[in-house]
Amino acid sequence: MSSGKLTEQAKGVFIIAATPFTDDGALDLQSVDTLTDFYLGCGVHGFTLLGMMGEAHKLTGEESIDVVKRVIGRVGSRQVIVGVSHAGLENVRRLAHEVMIAGAAGVMVAPPPGLKGDDGIYNYYAQVFQALGPDIPVVYQDYPQATGVYLPPTVFERLVDDFKQLVMLKHEDAPGLAKLTRVRESEKKPGRRRVSILVGNGGLYYPQELRRGADGAMTGFAWPEMLVKVYDLFASGKAEEAEDLFDIYLPLVRHEVQPAIGLALRKEVLFRRGAIKSPKQRAPGSSLTATDKAELENMIERLERRLADAGRGSKMAAE
Amino acid sequence: MSSGKLTEQAKGVFIIAATPFTDDGALDLQSVDTLTDFYLGCGVHGFTLLGMMGEAHKLTGEESIDVVKRVIGRVGSRQVIVGVSHAGLENVRRLAHEVMIAGAAGVMVAPPPGLKGDDGIYNYYAQVFQALGPDIPVVYQDYPQATGVYLPPTVFERLVDDFKQLVMLKHEDAPGLAKLTRVRESEKKPGRRRVSILVGNGGLYYPQELRRGADGAMTGFAWPEMLVKVYDLFASGKAEEAEDLFDIYLPLVRHEVQPAIGLALRKEVLFRRGAIKSPKQRAPGSSLTATDKAELENMIERLERRLADAGRGSKMAAE
Amino acid sequence: MSSGKLTEQAKGVFIIAATPFTDDGALDLQSVDTLTDFYLGCGVHGFTLLGMMGEAHKLTGEESIDVVKRVIGRVGSRQVIVGVSHAGLENVRRLAHEVMIAGAAGVMVAPPPGLKGDDGIYNYYAQVFQALGPDIPVVYQDYPQATGVYLPPTVFERLVDDFKQLVMLKHEDAPGLAKLTRVRESEKKPGRRRVSILVGNGGLYYPQELRRGADGAMTGFAWPEMLVKVYDLFASGKAEEAEDLFDIYLPLVRHEVQPAIGLALRKEVLFRRGAIKSPKQRAPGSSLTATDKAELENMIERLERRLADAGRGSKMAAE
Amino acid sequence: MSSGKLTEQAKGVFIIAATPFTDDGALDLQSVDTLTDFYLGCGVHGFTLLGMMGEAHKLTGEESIDVVKRVIGRVGSRQVIVGVSHAGLENVRRLAHEVMIAGAAGVMVAPPPGLKGDDGIYNYYAQVFQALGPDIPVVYQDYPQATGVYLPPTVFERLVDDFKQLVMLKHEDAPGLAKLTRVRESEKKPGRRRVSILVGNGGLYYPQELRRGADGAMTGFAWPEMLVKVYDLFASGKAEEAEDLFDIYLPLVRHEVQPAIGLALRKEVLFRRGAIKSPKQRAPGSSLTATDKAELENMIERLERRLADAGRGSKMAAE
Repeated sequence: MSSGKLTEQAKGVFIIAATPFTDDGALDLQSVDTLTDFYLGCGVHGFTLLGMMGEAHKLTGEESIDVVKRVIGRVGSRQVIVGVSHAGLENVRRLAHEVMIAGAAGVMVAPPPGLKGDDGIYNYYAQVFQALGPDIPVVYQDYPQATGVYLPPTVFERLVDDFKQLVMLKHEDAPGLAKLTRVRESEKKPGRRRVSILVGNGGLYYPQELRRGADGAMTGFAWPEMLVKVYDLFASGKAEEAEDLFDIYLPLVRHEVQPAIGLALRKEVLFRRGAIKSPKQRAPGSSLTATDKAELENMIERLERRLADAGRGSKMAAE
Repeated sequence: MSSGKLTEQAKGVFIIAATPFTDDGALDLQSVDTLTDFYLGCGVHGFTLLGMMGEAHKLTGEESIDVVKRVIGRVGSRQVIVGVSHAGLENVRRLAHEVMIAGAAGVMVAPPPGLKGDDGIYNYYAQVFQALGPDIPVVYQDYPQATGVYLPPTVFERLVDDFKQLVMLKHEDAPGLAKLTRVRESEKKPGRRRVSILVGNGGLYYPQELRRGADGAMTGFAWPEMLVKVYDLFASGKAEEAEDLFDIYLPLVRHEVQPAIGLALRKEVLFRRGAIKSPKQRAPGSSLTATDKAELENMIERLERRLADAGRGSKMAAE
Repeated sequence: MSSGKLTEQAKGVFIIAATPFTDDGALDLQSVDTLTDFYLGCGVHGFTLLGMMGEAHKLTGEESIDVVKRVIGRVGSRQVIVGVSHAGLENVRRLAHEVMIAGAAGVMVAPPPGLKGDDGIYNYYAQVFQALGPDIPVVYQDYPQATGVYLPPTVFERLVDDFKQLVMLKHEDAPGLAKLTRVRESEKKPGRRRVSILVGNGGLYYPQELRRGADGAMTGFAWPEMLVKVYDLFASGKAEEAEDLFDIYLPLVRHEVQPAIGLALRKEVLFRRGAIKSPKQRAPGSSLTATDKAELENMIERLERRLADAGRGSKMAAE
Repeated sequence: MSSGKLTEQAKGVFIIAATPFTDDGALDLQSVDTLTDFYLGCGVHGFTLLGMMGEAHKLTGEESIDVVKRVIGRVGSRQVIVGVSHAGLENVRRLAHEVMIAGAAGVMVAPPPGLKGDDGIYNYYAQVFQALGPDIPVVYQDYPQATGVYLPPTVFERLVDDFKQLVMLKHEDAPGLAKLTRVRESEKKPGRRRVSILVGNGGLYYPQELRRGADGAMTGFAWPEMLVKVYDLFASGKAEEAEDLFDIYLPLVRHEVQPAIGLALRKEVLFRRGAIKSPKQRAPGSSLTATDKAELENMIERLERRLADAGRGSKMAAE
């Protein structure tokens, strides 16, 4: 539980955890436990809670804290990052303090919609850092497809130079490969820190991003063991082998990145793999038709066949 | 305090209340009292709390309830509508029940961004009505400039036909005049209810809307007495006189409808009129420069002169 | 016809001209003449053609040039600015050259949707200026409500410093008053040019903008004589008197700024004032209902009464 | 050249053709020829010109027609669909007539941004169909990610029932699989026509879409032979084999669907494959860095290895 604070050295796979509900829509804390164990069994290096895909916006304040505490209490030395984005800075501050006291390693903050111009972004984060103080490590969540706020690399670099508590970029812009390279290039400037970069977008460009200097992934793909193994293979210099493995899962990676329906697909897989008791989302949510389920089944069978062909065993897909 | 539930007969001015904070950004409940008294002194017929302009999104859950209870406890027989829009339906349900128990007359619900197609809107509200049950009166907040969701009149009419608890349209589309007329025309169909329509957009088209069948206003203009007097004059058949009065205030109505800076202007006026102790907004918020304040002063002086010329006394602008 | 090129000294009212069509939707060049004469009779100082409100996007390439030549041939020494925004830079270049050869004084360019970050805007305009060369005066059209591109004052200042051909800001951001003041303040820096600023948004904040340093208006209000007289009064030091006159027209200024329906209202007024033969817009366009027309008539009668009361004669409204 | 008009029976691969330019940005008609031949060599069944990815918006009116005529003159009996979307209906009508006279098989129309409500969409297309007359076959381009206009299946069904000239759905919504199934289900209603559905989105969900009833693809993937072979395999009942082939190309399909940079990648591949003389886009356009090119090369090498492993020969990737 004393996992230490998040630093620029963070790497590996921080899984974005789904939030399980019962068929009635109640928060299912027992499934939080089994899902946490499932993720641990997949070898994830850390957790990200209350992210955009975690249905955090449908939880009450109390439920949010309950989930955070429940997971932190179960993951031992793994670090937990908690999303604390909110329209009001005071709420960002309160939630951040609350989760840090509960044992979080750091917090993640996305820009609110409507920030204007490079200075608008810089000034907002300057306010956030001042409100949180120097002791809370912060992840910049760069997801303009959802926030509408484009982060120029120069602004990120100014923030890194001026605020030591900014230790990670959650990289989720699209297109984003050039930005990743640009940030890594700029870090060669004497005196600038090298921060951690974990990538999102469901992992759709994961091998390319690792080749360009990403330190791992922060996403919610329903076969997290793939994310972990690909990371391990890259870390041990086997980039091509890593990408071979990734490509086997790519049809499902791509299937899950579909907007609106993606979470329903992920929860269905987690349900089928025994990690949660119900694939239910809280209303308003998406759900799968019989056709959607048959299609998913077929894709999983194809995955298992290809894993078997590659000598990796169908267990990975189906367990 | 037993103001009864909101019905289709609601009319007059439901002021959208600002939320006062101290210079430190703390919720200022004493100013909630003085502001409430100020609104009552202006003759408003009702209140709308936790609206988009009330900085509701910057309050904690507890603070929200505190504000609602504080106002309800002070307004006697005036009805109070509370905004309960939330990304999760369960949160809509909980907050709605909580405020109804506290004495609210009804709740207001805006569509969440991303609803697709006519049926998407209908189905969302059908879910809301089912979640809230038949006993909580609901206002449809039609503000596509903020939500991105256009409400076709035909969809509103289907909802009115199918759900008795839908009693009011908060009319804030732009352009919106034709839609207002269309809704009123469609109510002539045998068997369809005539619902209450209160208009927003800072009152920018208030006289035109009253002529087309609106029942009053639900907005936050900082001289609420104008909204009330214009309503009274219309109600007593003096439409031209009403519009004459409106036109005197129009320069300031128009000044306040500026996006982003509008709330800072309103709070500055409320502060100058002694209704609140500080014009402070919670961060992130807008604020006024010295130039902005001098400009506002000049506009207020012009308003007072024109009121004096019209024999209405500067007291109305400055008290 | 030798009106000279647009410079930083441009001032007064550049009317954004409507484009008249027959009831069949054909371009009506005779009405282009009568409308041009009408604008000249109102005392406008210049013209802006092929703007967003001119239905330029519904003209063929040939029709566009026909309109430009027709107007330029009729306005004597008045300067004509032509909108040349286009998705492709090559098309911007071609159209700009064509209209400059035809006698235009300068061109107006809005940023294309999707520019990212401060540098994205700077670089786009740098490309434009390079494509057009140093001899074509350019107006930056700052209308983020339509383009989605916010212009930070610092970016505008960099462009002014680096490109002499940038001589005017068409100011149409909202809120925009603070930006106007900021640009004027920054021009006090030694060596920086003072550019012309003409304001849009239908003139809704015209007196405030003139007080803050605007040089006039570039908009399409259907009573252009008001725009001209207000400008003249300001120019002769009678700011309060100017604003008194503006306020008389404000109900109609506000009526015309309604999105979607605004152009239909303007064309209806121009039609009633005898300036064009038909209020028709090319499809897809908006049109007025009988209720809309009766409402407009009532507002015009109110305007005439107030002008008469102010000793200014109903002629101004009705001629 | 007498390819006949587009009908509901259209199927196969209609390639969305890139538009080649020289390094100076001039239209390169010789490369139009070689690119057309390249596509024909890949076995495509038809062509779509002046689509969103064809940089049509950067062509002059004359250049557009030149491209259309050049391609039609070269493709023999293959059908050519031409994009004619425009802000003005009159321009839609003129361009449609011009290309039909030049030998096009049909036209494609996307909804303009800003259409409101189900009826807004229906009424716009009703206007289009009336303007074009009954003899021009029309494709509905359903691409809400670009247009902002969601097409409810019910609206599409009404249009199919009421307008015989609507013969094809260009299916590019996301998520879109459920919509495709819904449209196919609804066609079982007695009396309703079954229309052709070709899918876009770079082919990212091509096998799933074929399984759900799509008739082929209309997209611009730079290895069109894959699109054709997958179609052929499906058509001959070998769905699993088709998907096996698709999966080999999926890493590159996914790479090309990156926004903003996708066209630069496609033109680079077409350039490397000898189909065009320069990968240049007209300004403003995207381009590739050295890192981007090295990455692409690596991905192509991986593709060739996998094709070789599958006994399909590296020729397919590199020829």
